[in-house]
Amino acid sequence: MSKEAQTDYKIHELLSKRWSPRAFDERPVEKDKILRMMEAARWSPSSSNQQPWNFVIGEKGNESWDKIFDCLIEFNQKWAKFAPLLILSVGRHNMISKDNENRYYKYDVGQSVAHMTFQATEDGLFVHQMAGFDKKKARMTFDIPDDYDALSVVAVGYIGRPEILHPRMQKSEIAGRERKSLKEFLFSGKFGETSNLIDHE
Amino acid sequence: MSKEAQTDYKIHELLSKRWSPRAFDERPVEKDKILRMMEAARWSPSSSNQQPWNFVIGEKGNESWDKIFDCLIEFNQKWAKFAPLLILSVGRHNMISKDNENRYYKYDVGQSVAHMTFQATEDGLFVHQMAGFDKKKARMTFDIPDDYDALSVVAVGYIGRPEILHPRMQKSEIAGRERKSLKEFLFSGKFGETSNLIDHE
Repeated sequence: MSKEAQTDYKIHELLSKRWSPRAFDERPVEKDKILRMMEAARWSPSSSNQQPWNFVIGEKGNESWDKIFDCLIEFNQKWAKFAPLLILSVGRHNMISKDNENRYYKYDVGQSVAHMTFQATEDGLFVHQMAGFDKKKARMTFDIPDDYDALSVVAVGYIGRPEILHPRMQKSEIAGRERKSLKEFLFSGKFGETSNLIDHE
Repeated sequence: MSKEAQTDYKIHELLSKRWSPRAFDERPVEKDKILRMMEAARWSPSSSNQQPWNFVIGEKGNESWDKIFDCLIEFNQKWAKFAPLLILSVGRHNMISKDNENRYYKYDVGQSVAHMTFQATEDGLFVHQMAGFDKKKARMTFDIPDDYDALSVVAVGYIGRPEILHPRMQKSEIAGRERKSLKEFLFSGKFGETSNLIDHE
């Protein structure tokens, strides 16, 4: 199944073919592919090169997978149970060797997960990020220190058949992908004034 | 000049060859390349598909470029003056049609800039993101509403010669790139316990 983005301007196919499925195949993710994803995250840029990203890796069948799964909200558990790989992203919110806050830790962890996703897509995998999980439970379960925050759970695997999903989830699984148009968020001169790069119709 | 990442595991060359230069060539960025970058950002994933990203585009010689440049701290002005394209990223921090806070707006804007960066890299461009600018001045200059925050300034262009930089900046321009090792941020079982995916030496 392909849900390639309907783009107005041509973009790299690793970007246009990426989407966030819920139906994952049971096939495990190969160790070398997991490591390549992590290597990709590693070379992401960050503010003052603080590299605030950390990842707890759960492979289906092991204890970390079970513990991450147990932190998910019920809705996400209904489909994430199929994902062979669950990764908890954890960001450091203060600066290394300083007490001050790193205002860019979420921004930079988001970037590192995007890099991870790009590599996963190159390796034939799909990624679905989740905000819906119990952050306090994750902190207790994994003994996360105070200067770090659990930010997202990243499900990874090969694409599965939509039929394995709960009927209500099958609909969104096969629906088209939607985005705002470029003229809604590209500005020049002043915030809210559409950039003159966009042809006004 | 190449500063390809020294990776432990092979990653896509658009990731390994990406780095953040300060020396940009004066050659302008073609309009279709700018639009492809923005299209790439557009198809980035986001929490509840909120798409919190917005961008003010400044091309060297136009008013938006001058205004964005004027918001940069002095250190960044010393090199960003060479960049043909300066983009101000602005995130919406509340949810569309709801009053509640979007806790993922920074994370998601970071991802969208990563997507933008992959497309730029594919098109032969380089990207250098900056946190060092006056956010209040940016808000006033571009009349940014209260429910949005200026997050970063993104410099984009073709690579330039390091010699155009201030002597103190030339050193870092040609220095190798450094990252933590994987075992420092990949965990399993418990936060801080290196994942068993990593071979312990």
